[in-house]
Amino acid sequence: MTLKVDGDRLWSDLMTMAAIGATANGGSYRTSLSDADRDGRNLFVHWAKEAGLGITVDKIGNIFARREGQDPSLAPVMMGSHLDTQAPGGRFDGVLGVLAGLEVVRTLDRAGIRTRRAIEVVNWTNEEGARFPPGVVGSNLFAGRTTLETLYQTRDRAGIFMGDELKRIGYLGEAEVGQRPVDSYLELHIEQGPVLEAANVVIGAVTNTSCQGGGIIEILGENGHSQTTRMSKRRNALVGAARIIEAIETIGMAQEPHGMASATVIDILPNNRINIPHKAVVQFLTVHADPEGRDRILDAIEQAVVAIGRDNHFTTSFSRNPQRHKFDFPVELVELTERVAGQLGHSSMRLPTWTAHDALNMHVVCPTALIFLPCRDGISHSEFEWCEPQHATAGADVLANMVLDRAQRPDE
Amino acid sequence: MTLKVDGDRLWSDLMTMAAIGATANGGSYRTSLSDADRDGRNLFVHWAKEAGLGITVDKIGNIFARREGQDPSLAPVMMGSHLDTQAPGGRFDGVLGVLAGLEVVRTLDRAGIRTRRAIEVVNWTNEEGARFPPGVVGSNLFAGRTTLETLYQTRDRAGIFMGDELKRIGYLGEAEVGQRPVDSYLELHIEQGPVLEAANVVIGAVTNTSCQGGGIIEILGENGHSQTTRMSKRRNALVGAARIIEAIETIGMAQEPHGMASATVIDILPNNRINIPHKAVVQFLTVHADPEGRDRILDAIEQAVVAIGRDNHFTTSFSRNPQRHKFDFPVELVELTERVAGQLGHSSMRLPTWTAHDALNMHVVCPTALIFLPCRDGISHSEFEWCEPQHATAGADVLANMVLDRAQRPDE
Ligand SMILES: [Zn+2]
Ligand SMILES: [Zn+2]
Repeated sequence: MTLKVDGDRLWSDLMTMAAIGATANGGSYRTSLSDADRDGRNLFVHWAKEAGLGITVDKIGNIFARREGQDPSLAPVMMGSHLDTQAPGGRFDGVLGVLAGLEVVRTLDRAGIRTRRAIEVVNWTNEEGARFPPGVVGSNLFAGRTTLETLYQTRDRAGIFMGDELKRIGYLGEAEVGQRPVDSYLELHIEQGPVLEAANVVIGAVTNTSCQGGGIIEILGENGHSQTTRMSKRRNALVGAARIIEAIETIGMAQEPHGMASATVIDILPNNRINIPHKAVVQFLTVHADPEGRDRILDAIEQAVVAIGRDNHFTTSFSRNPQRHKFDFPVELVELTERVAGQLGHSSMRLPTWTAHDALNMHVVCPTALIFLPCRDGISHSEFEWCEPQHATAGADVLANMVLDRAQRPDE
Repeated sequence: MTLKVDGDRLWSDLMTMAAIGATANGGSYRTSLSDADRDGRNLFVHWAKEAGLGITVDKIGNIFARREGQDPSLAPVMMGSHLDTQAPGGRFDGVLGVLAGLEVVRTLDRAGIRTRRAIEVVNWTNEEGARFPPGVVGSNLFAGRTTLETLYQTRDRAGIFMGDELKRIGYLGEAEVGQRPVDSYLELHIEQGPVLEAANVVIGAVTNTSCQGGGIIEILGENGHSQTTRMSKRRNALVGAARIIEAIETIGMAQEPHGMASATVIDILPNNRINIPHKAVVQFLTVHADPEGRDRILDAIEQAVVAIGRDNHFTTSFSRNPQRHKFDFPVELVELTERVAGQLGHSSMRLPTWTAHDALNMHVVCPTALIFLPCRDGISHSEFEWCEPQHATAGADVLANMVLDRAQRPDE
């Protein structure tokens, strides 16, 4: 049999969730553990309970909405993504994967199907990292790749601890994080890139990750009075930062179409008009199809930093972010995605993911599939993000039938 | 007669005050209305009371320490400056003018002199503007050039109101601000520039202001994902800001030695690694000997902003800060400074001030003198600020005899 979701209900849920933290440009502003994130979580829990699901919140605030299976001894099939957004963000990035999961469960109910394995819909805490960098930490902890203490001690720019905010919004749960078997994890997400739209294809079966990197650059100049210090004596760390930002842009532009690099964060001291800044910290991210390409970009940026520091009498330092290894998603799940898409009459293609997702963490826990949908102009992390309703429906249909396949699987 | 201060006592007071908010590099960190500023104020009040002075705090926290004169109907002679610092700042900028004032009063006591006019030593609130921009606001309000409500509503970067902090640290006084006659105002200050040191001259008689200006530049790009958006589609507002910062630096360098310009402040949104910044706000200050020169700099920066915006598809805006008119200090007080310096055997020269001081506000209230002392390498707004002890003593001696001259003056 082939399951079909209620696309109108899914679309209505997406638009309703988007109202929480709505921005005037049509986006949403629900950074992790904010009041809006709390309200979004509450609405998800409310809908999940309406669908008869059992709710578990773990110690990092990940929410699991569980539909029991026939055999409680079997590991559950999990699907989901994240309800938090960028600042501001759009209506689909993350939200689609969670709400499509809910609609899949309702669809199983309507079809009167009880699966062998339990099914869980998960909302991961702080995927975006917009308020508490870095992101994808809820799933990272689930996969045992960081510690609870590290996350509780993470602070936002106002100095507020993640642990305190979890408690404040009522999502500091009691369940241990992870440390339990999962049969498989399926994440539906907008592509956040232009490939599917350009190819006029509806379903993307993600085959592998790209090679991400990034770094933090410190520039130390000398403070002084900005209306009395002779120009030739100034060592303005902001000017040093500007030259480094320009160099990163030039290096990034030279990678097209195989890689990217941009400076995206700057903090300077003292950041006061009357003072020449003595310190600037610039952060950048880069990504490349190959590890060698990523390393070449990082090397080029490091060399530019050294040269700019030397030529302008700044003291500079350069440190690389921890790097994620490139990996392939399991072929069996890539093929399952393609097969199910074909059964439903949807076009599909294989493609890599350029950025991080919770699926990249779950990959180390269990067989994982990442399923992409086209988004307009490849835009995401933006209020103008857009996913066509028929594509959202198609994606949820694919997800439903993939989940059914996995959940009825006999134990190996 | 010629008064001579106790230079050792003055130096000891300067070093003691510097201990409040001491930094490991030998500077001080006492931003306005911080705990350290409160402690600095408390110490000043304690010393003033020890010297028998009466304390008045006004509604913006300006502190007046008053030594009564023989004729209470005559307007007082006022001297002072500010105890708040940059973040971090040095041991002399502002502090010298306040503590030298205290030492002048003690010197009059030791000499057994009762003056016709009262003498007040003032500590102005928030001269530096480091925490609550803009600066020189305590004296600005005293001169009737802003409103109490505007200042109470001024916020720091954490969103805390100046009015609330005044109350918290216990310096929200009850006296009306200004609106009373002042005979004259004398401010002793380090030069914050290289002129006196290069000329090997001890006393600077400030003749006039230079022409200050500045502005705020907004750059609007487009937000997006920093690991998926094609390089050629990015409109990274931080890159636009970098190009504008570089252009301001080039324009500033071309002014040497008659003018200066530097970008010193940047704020971007969302300032998160994974997002292409869609908004950047850059602030700069400029200064030139002539108003035409200042306007040429502002015009050149505005043209650069327009060109960079157009060539890079950013929306930009440019707004000029309110500009202070160039003015001359009264000749009688410039001549008094020179005469007193000569009597004491100190070299002196006339020079302009490149930056703002409380004296520039008091100029509209009463005849005002600004007296400069050399500082090492022209460095200020820095932990490495330095004033030679013998120069501090010489300046306080000049201040003492100028105050005596003014305070014994018959009413006109
Ligand atoms: Zn996402
Ligand atoms: Zn000062």
